[in-house]
Amino acid sequence: MIETSIIEAENARRQAGLAQDYDALGARLARNGVEIEALTRRATGFGVAIPSWGTGTGGTRFARFPGEGEPNGIMDKLDDCGVIQQLTDATPRVSLHIPWDKADPADLMAKAEELGLGFDAMNSNTFQNHEGHPLSYKYGSLSHVDIATRQQAIEHNIECIEIGEKIGSKALTVWIGDGSNFPGQTSLSRQFDRYLESMKRIYARLPGDWRIFSEHKIYEPAFYSTVVQDWGTSLMIAQELGDQAQCLVDLGHHAPNVNIEMIVARLIRAGKLGGFHFNDSKYGDDDLDSGTIEPFRLFLVFNELVELEDTPGLNLAHMIDQSHNVTDPIESLIVSAGEIQRAYVQASLVDRAALEGYRQENDALMAAATLRAAFRTDVEPILAEARRRAGAAIDPVATYRAAGYRAQVAARRPKAAGGGGGIV
Amino acid sequence: MIETSIIEAENARRQAGLAQDYDALGARLARNGVEIEALTRRATGFGVAIPSWGTGTGGTRFARFPGEGEPNGIMDKLDDCGVIQQLTDATPRVSLHIPWDKADPADLMAKAEELGLGFDAMNSNTFQNHEGHPLSYKYGSLSHVDIATRQQAIEHNIECIEIGEKIGSKALTVWIGDGSNFPGQTSLSRQFDRYLESMKRIYARLPGDWRIFSEHKIYEPAFYSTVVQDWGTSLMIAQELGDQAQCLVDLGHHAPNVNIEMIVARLIRAGKLGGFHFNDSKYGDDDLDSGTIEPFRLFLVFNELVELEDTPGLNLAHMIDQSHNVTDPIESLIVSAGEIQRAYVQASLVDRAALEGYRQENDALMAAATLRAAFRTDVEPILAEARRRAGAAIDPVATYRAAGYRAQVAARRPKAAGGGGGIV
Amino acid sequence: MIETSIIEAENARRQAGLAQDYDALGARLARNGVEIEALTRRATGFGVAIPSWGTGTGGTRFARFPGEGEPNGIMDKLDDCGVIQQLTDATPRVSLHIPWDKADPADLMAKAEELGLGFDAMNSNTFQNHEGHPLSYKYGSLSHVDIATRQQAIEHNIECIEIGEKIGSKALTVWIGDGSNFPGQTSLSRQFDRYLESMKRIYARLPGDWRIFSEHKIYEPAFYSTVVQDWGTSLMIAQELGDQAQCLVDLGHHAPNVNIEMIVARLIRAGKLGGFHFNDSKYGDDDLDSGTIEPFRLFLVFNELVELEDTPGLNLAHMIDQSHNVTDPIESLIVSAGEIQRAYVQASLVDRAALEGYRQENDALMAAATLRAAFRTDVEPILAEARRRAGAAIDPVATYRAAGYRAQVAARRPKAAGGGGGIV
Amino acid sequence: MIETSIIEAENARRQAGLAQDYDALGARLARNGVEIEALTRRATGFGVAIPSWGTGTGGTRFARFPGEGEPNGIMDKLDDCGVIQQLTDATPRVSLHIPWDKADPADLMAKAEELGLGFDAMNSNTFQNHEGHPLSYKYGSLSHVDIATRQQAIEHNIECIEIGEKIGSKALTVWIGDGSNFPGQTSLSRQFDRYLESMKRIYARLPGDWRIFSEHKIYEPAFYSTVVQDWGTSLMIAQELGDQAQCLVDLGHHAPNVNIEMIVARLIRAGKLGGFHFNDSKYGDDDLDSGTIEPFRLFLVFNELVELEDTPGLNLAHMIDQSHNVTDPIESLIVSAGEIQRAYVQASLVDRAALEGYRQENDALMAAATLRAAFRTDVEPILAEARRRAGAAIDPVATYRAAGYRAQVAARRPKAAGGGGGIV
Repeated sequence: MIETSIIEAENARRQAGLAQDYDALGARLARNGVEIEALTRRATGFGVAIPSWGTGTGGTRFARFPGEGEPNGIMDKLDDCGVIQQLTDATPRVSLHIPWDKADPADLMAKAEELGLGFDAMNSNTFQNHEGHPLSYKYGSLSHVDIATRQQAIEHNIECIEIGEKIGSKALTVWIGDGSNFPGQTSLSRQFDRYLESMKRIYARLPGDWRIFSEHKIYEPAFYSTVVQDWGTSLMIAQELGDQAQCLVDLGHHAPNVNIEMIVARLIRAGKLGGFHFNDSKYGDDDLDSGTIEPFRLFLVFNELVELEDTPGLNLAHMIDQSHNVTDPIESLIVSAGEIQRAYVQASLVDRAALEGYRQENDALMAAATLRAAFRTDVEPILAEARRRAGAAIDPVATYRAAGYRAQVAARRPKAAGGGGGIV
Repeated sequence: MIETSIIEAENARRQAGLAQDYDALGARLARNGVEIEALTRRATGFGVAIPSWGTGTGGTRFARFPGEGEPNGIMDKLDDCGVIQQLTDATPRVSLHIPWDKADPADLMAKAEELGLGFDAMNSNTFQNHEGHPLSYKYGSLSHVDIATRQQAIEHNIECIEIGEKIGSKALTVWIGDGSNFPGQTSLSRQFDRYLESMKRIYARLPGDWRIFSEHKIYEPAFYSTVVQDWGTSLMIAQELGDQAQCLVDLGHHAPNVNIEMIVARLIRAGKLGGFHFNDSKYGDDDLDSGTIEPFRLFLVFNELVELEDTPGLNLAHMIDQSHNVTDPIESLIVSAGEIQRAYVQASLVDRAALEGYRQENDALMAAATLRAAFRTDVEPILAEARRRAGAAIDPVATYRAAGYRAQVAARRPKAAGGGGGIV
Repeated sequence: MIETSIIEAENARRQAGLAQDYDALGARLARNGVEIEALTRRATGFGVAIPSWGTGTGGTRFARFPGEGEPNGIMDKLDDCGVIQQLTDATPRVSLHIPWDKADPADLMAKAEELGLGFDAMNSNTFQNHEGHPLSYKYGSLSHVDIATRQQAIEHNIECIEIGEKIGSKALTVWIGDGSNFPGQTSLSRQFDRYLESMKRIYARLPGDWRIFSEHKIYEPAFYSTVVQDWGTSLMIAQELGDQAQCLVDLGHHAPNVNIEMIVARLIRAGKLGGFHFNDSKYGDDDLDSGTIEPFRLFLVFNELVELEDTPGLNLAHMIDQSHNVTDPIESLIVSAGEIQRAYVQASLVDRAALEGYRQENDALMAAATLRAAFRTDVEPILAEARRRAGAAIDPVATYRAAGYRAQVAARRPKAAGGGGGIV
Repeated sequence: MIETSIIEAENARRQAGLAQDYDALGARLARNGVEIEALTRRATGFGVAIPSWGTGTGGTRFARFPGEGEPNGIMDKLDDCGVIQQLTDATPRVSLHIPWDKADPADLMAKAEELGLGFDAMNSNTFQNHEGHPLSYKYGSLSHVDIATRQQAIEHNIECIEIGEKIGSKALTVWIGDGSNFPGQTSLSRQFDRYLESMKRIYARLPGDWRIFSEHKIYEPAFYSTVVQDWGTSLMIAQELGDQAQCLVDLGHHAPNVNIEMIVARLIRAGKLGGFHFNDSKYGDDDLDSGTIEPFRLFLVFNELVELEDTPGLNLAHMIDQSHNVTDPIESLIVSAGEIQRAYVQASLVDRAALEGYRQENDALMAAATLRAAFRTDVEPILAEARRRAGAAIDPVATYRAAGYRAQVAARRPKAAGGGGGIV
């Protein structure tokens, strides 16, 4: 963790400017009948989970270039997550990935408590072979033609639930790479039947207060077909499994041009939206930092969430899921949490009564202008003030850099090997 | 109609060559244990409906350039459809569009009988204003914010059913352009609620032996959101309406790169695939002639249909839906019917036992090669022989040209006005 | 024109709030070493041309739904443009389209002077047939296989130059829909040869102080190939024609996912960027209002323009090119001019010294954050203040509505016919 | 190598069937005035290079699942290439990748001679760090902000030329992953300047009878911008470098929906088409086997090449570039070489006189039908006969399997480690 005195010193340098900006924004919002304190409370109440694996440098099939002080195992990763939460107060939970994060549950709980963290959804992994598992996932896992391989994948998912139960998790996220690379390679229909049969076996083992999330993805690592390719298939899965099954939307997992906020609205109506994997992208599943490529798109997603936030039963699991290839992963996670929180607060600023009035009049121009007016409001003072009040950093990245955390862990963590990606 | 003697004379010139090709293909197929006559029977049994509006030259928002002898009203259009069926024996039914094709039902029936045609699904139109309808669809129809406009659109759809009942149709296809052009213009969720409420009113009026098809489309004419934007939404609609509601897949209505054959497999599993609008496209909803841009994609759709053809309850409505901007529409429809039939026969050629064996062995290479072997078989002799036996043309386009039909109708039909599209 | 007193009254109601916001922003910018007045001067100096046709309601191939008071001819259109310029002070020039805007040049000049407008690039039209021109453009224009049709298209372009010379225009924009709808329909190589040959004929007639712009577009109205399909082809054209030929970038004319700001940077390096057609889009060439779908993308384009603004010889023609289907076109043009100006001012806010420092350090996170910090600054007070100082409206849309201009012209202009688009 | 007797025995089983098919096809072609022997000669004359790295199992950023008998170093890879050439007679050259394939040039030459192989273009690698090279390519190579890193990358490329000179290569292919992951991370313009400066240094070292190919790619491994992102940029590079510089087109490196055959036609006109990297794809740079996803697209590329094959100076380097993740790489390369050869022979079958006649008449329907008639001709008997005459296999995959080559090498080659891709 970073010493509190460093955070305090950094905040002290920025406090006067923040106060000015916060007051000016408050005055301007007040002119429009908006109370800034209500927004600051919303910012304070917002949290998004961090994936444990996001703290390490990611890569592509071509190469991976690790940075200094890469985390070496789950305890290091939790340390990094603790720093992010300390500086942002927006990332209170960590999502584990099995088998990467296997450890004694008691140790995990102790470490998390020490860092002020909780555990979010568990993530299974059947897109890679595991040491000690005899059967390969080269040709699939939960939908494999071979029943023994499917059984191995089912048992792995059940193991994830069992670990999760011991550390306070309440959900299992199932994303699989199963699919095919060539037309004809697999029966599109029977592969889906096998997948559903496997998922029913996992669902049967789900504790009564848990949820299971199915996550769709249009392609990669399978390049012709993917068994859970879009939200329509994900919806069919959740419907067939039962009430504890919902759909998880990863912002980068869609075909080009797709209107994601419509999917959000549809899944909420179906009672099947479970949560999000946040990231940004320009081409494919680029897994870039949230809000860095198309910030308005992120805002539009949150606009739906805020518009529909009173929907009965809506209970969303928010998580970041990014690959940090050219930045310090801690910094990217800090910035991303802020961008997600920003979109939420901006969406909270929309004048919904005015908006609805324009819609009733088919006044497309003013309805659109109403959304844009909220989006272009610079709510950074609200986010910064929410952090300041929680003892986090007014400027989290600058404070992180000032604290020298990366250099400290680089000194004590072994240097990571880089190397080629999948093609060598 | 074209004089039978012309068809006979044209066929006579090609019969010897066809016989040679048919025998050579038969011999080759027999070496692989395939009986050519079974395929020829399948070709004979295949039919795809023609949209009445497809017989006129289409256009874009920039311009429309009519050809010679454009049909002037539904009776002319039926004449053109009669010629297509006469030459191909693959297009036994016509799909009407209201109000464009409004006429005395008795006259329609008489004309159709004379031409040997039947009537397929009815199509409503709420993407244009109708003469005599007081309310505009500029801002939507079945999902309009104004209840009176919704009611007008509902009544129009019920009128389509009533007309259809009198001419032997058994289905209503509902495609609407409703959506929005700007983020915020409409409530994505409430607009869908309104749509569903309207559709339930139409569904309530559906005769017991009818089906209603909802047709999704990612965009156009709405350019930010479309209320029935993808198959997931279409599935929700069909589920909510009831057993008589199914989904219609137009091949050009998807996001780039989407795997359409997977959608086909999923909708069949859900018991909700109702049929197709066939066309081809490279960029958007280009409405080009079927099989002219990506013939293998068309084959892969039929590969699913043939693989799953024994699914209980499967009853598909096949229709062509294209815009013929630079060709003689009759010729394009002739060629398109042939390309669709070709894909069906090629898909029927797949060695499914071998394919399933390769799949069980995860032999992706040979599984894919098995599909391609069927696709690259030139089944034109089978299609031509099926036509010849039915009294249709071995070479329908050449025969159509030889008959001089277009010049004849051009002489008696008034010249159509062209002009700009929507932007002027 | 709108009465000055209305603008003054509307401004008076908003002046105090604007002053507060402007001062608060000025103070905040000053803390970062930025002088707000410099930005306000840049805002004042910025202008974007209006296309005459943009003042009418647009449509799609499905339908067109005109609004009240549609302009009836070029003099009405100029009136509408005058109002936009009066309210925004950001649209000093109008771009004409021939033959739609043909009129006595002296009348055009007089009208423009009365309204305080000038004339921007001329636009030729060979995607529609013209009355009085014997040959059809159904199969192409400048690249048609028939030399007489090419000659007709060449002469039309020369006529556009001749008209432009009389009204002070200094550029000709050539966009053609030529291409093909089917593989094989045209020779991709020879069609391009014919296009170049025609363009050389037009170029030979270009006055010495004029420029000619070639505008690429990936598709529509041609759906398989378009002769000037991308910036690479456009660059080849400009290189082959000579120094007076440059490339025009329409933001909506690219393949999905394409990075347009890279194209901007490349064309500037090649000395061949001539200007822009601004609009926004989500799917294809949607021609939506600028900055309403992806405002950050618009900002990134201007970020390149500002970064490279000192490039010798850079002289950009900015124009709006949109289709206003569901809004009052005047309002859309007002808002769009503001969004384009906003992106320009935001891009002018980027701390370029800091940015370059981060780049040198490969500090991707802070470099990206530097751009985003500029983008999220709400510069509306700067834009409003620039308008106020010029006698334009602090809130142009509200002022336009208060003035009742649309109702006034609706009372005196004949009602426009709507109707179907190209498909009927 | 595979024992000749095995090939002979396998061919003997298929020879009678082939003769029947070849004769039937010959008769049918003769009816249309086409001499089958001319096509067989064209098939015989066709060759495509194999990338050495294509003989190993590929992977994704998620995982790599090696197969049995993976090649262990360049000598094993050459053995595998020798088998492919032996069975197909269509892959006479191998393309090396440095540093992966570094070896004593004399040994490489000796091995190649023994296997009947030659060497094609050299490939440099600056998308991964190299052992013994002090500077990292994490933030770029030829366009890096640091001159020392650029220099290291330049020297590596020169080393590739030097190795190539010793083994008879005549070209260097430069593909780099340089770009950025975030807007602002890099100056789009200056990064390109640095790239060009580096390329000029490499070009200066190019032997007089060599060519240098620049290869564009829209994205991956960089996810916001890529310095050589499209053919327009590649063309600018080739123009600026000089006559020995040309552009290489990888079929999978384009934005969705892009018409690649137009790019082919444009680059030929510019005198700058150097060659291809063949593969197929559905979503991104999927690197799937050629002709397995959209065979008609591959045909259309060859249709341009055949139409323009008499262009003075046209000299194309054909190479396969695929990632074989779920198949035996040798089998995939065998099949892919066949599919590429198939597209070439089908394109050679197009009745170009008829096609040109239809184009002159704007008979889009028959022009398109003329291409499709060639495409749907099953030319497998021609390919098989060409192989048979050369002593290669009538059915190369079946023969390869019958020979048991994979099991033999698996027995003697060490087992490869699999593992995660770039994300772990």
